[in-house]
Amino acid sequence: MRFSNTDIKALEKNFRTNFVNSLSGFKSANLIGTISNTQKTNLAVFSSVIHVGANPPAMAILVRTATVERNTYSNIKENGYFTVNHIHKDFFRKAHQTSARYPKDVSEFDECGFTAQFTDTLPAPYVKEAAVKIGLKMTEEHIIKFNQTVFIVGEIMEVILDDTLIQKDGYIDIEKANTLTVSGLDSYHTTQRITRLSYAKPFTQPYDLSE
Amino acid sequence: MRFSNTDIKALEKNFRTNFVNSLSGFKSANLIGTISNTQKTNLAVFSSVIHVGANPPAMAILVRTATVERNTYSNIKENGYFTVNHIHKDFFRKAHQTSARYPKDVSEFDECGFTAQFTDTLPAPYVKEAAVKIGLKMTEEHIIKFNQTVFIVGEIMEVILDDTLIQKDGYIDIEKANTLTVSGLDSYHTTQRITRLSYAKPFTQPYDLSE
Repeated sequence: MRFSNTDIKALEKNFRTNFVNSLSGFKSANLIGTISNTQKTNLAVFSSVIHVGANPPAMAILVRTATVERNTYSNIKENGYFTVNHIHKDFFRKAHQTSARYPKDVSEFDECGFTAQFTDTLPAPYVKEAAVKIGLKMTEEHIIKFNQTVFIVGEIMEVILDDTLIQKDGYIDIEKANTLTVSGLDSYHTTQRITRLSYAKPFTQPYDLSE
Repeated sequence: MRFSNTDIKALEKNFRTNFVNSLSGFKSANLIGTISNTQKTNLAVFSSVIHVGANPPAMAILVRTATVERNTYSNIKENGYFTVNHIHKDFFRKAHQTSARYPKDVSEFDECGFTAQFTDTLPAPYVKEAAVKIGLKMTEEHIIKFNQTVFIVGEIMEVILDDTLIQKDGYIDIEKANTLTVSGLDSYHTTQRITRLSYAKPFTQPYDLSE
């Protein structure tokens, strides 16, 4: 079946939202923690966190400033820091609930049942319940002219995680942590590893890595 | 266990690469198809494809111009088009192999065993074997100052997919298509849906959506 750009634009709004959100493939499932200058914490589910680079270590998020994500954006703009916290199987329903449009003076930590955890490294709240937590400092932002979303790059200032998840070669077994993945707007999935593959070289075949 | 920014920078190079690449969570698994002005096709595995917006429909990729991804980048710069093709369980080993540093005159389509498929809509090759194919036109690029990667936004000009994957509300069942997800640099995973959750509203709980 084929859909042109015109076909997609002509789809019913909710149908189109579900359809296009499914196209990019599986997404990361994270909670972004921030705090305002008046010390109000905010927590929001994001599926747009991506890896940017390992050295220096960096990640990025794409923020929709016209939605509930605007509180996240305004807090990052105020103090420059945010946390990324993995969403696990045991609390994904509570994590999804952070996407509701709560009044600005309500903290999703309290309302959705998460514990804010601070360190001396940065002024942004971690989710205590997450097995993998990353603290970031915004280094730059790019406004996407196409639809006014904002791509925010952050340098990784701190990582807090269960050390039992780290394998000998540095790979973190996020499946063992029951980190979930998202498809579309609202579908949550566990994963099952097939294998890790060796670094690919021309004119040969990759082999399975053993732990 | 806690790692500071300084701790991460002091890690052994391969350890750090595996470690930091695991932090963002599960990633999309796609093959990007492009063609040069001299009609040489190129195919490369990417885990950085993300959703940008549904209306108008758009996706983006983050490209490392200093690696094998540079052929993808130069082709997109030449003619402005690229395709995104889901990686499924039955061909992920071949897909991984596209990350090898083949000489520029070698097509990964031929070398790794994929079939290039063209439509009249755009000058970029689809992967015939993929159940979900998206054709995009670059609308803008942003150079990330932090590490000289490039964030490329594309408007969706065409979608080709098995219509049996589309649910009544527009959601595409990419798990049914055996689309995989990636963690770290090299770990491939199938998924198992827990549930789809309803749109969240304040002071209530989300419920499970039935198909």
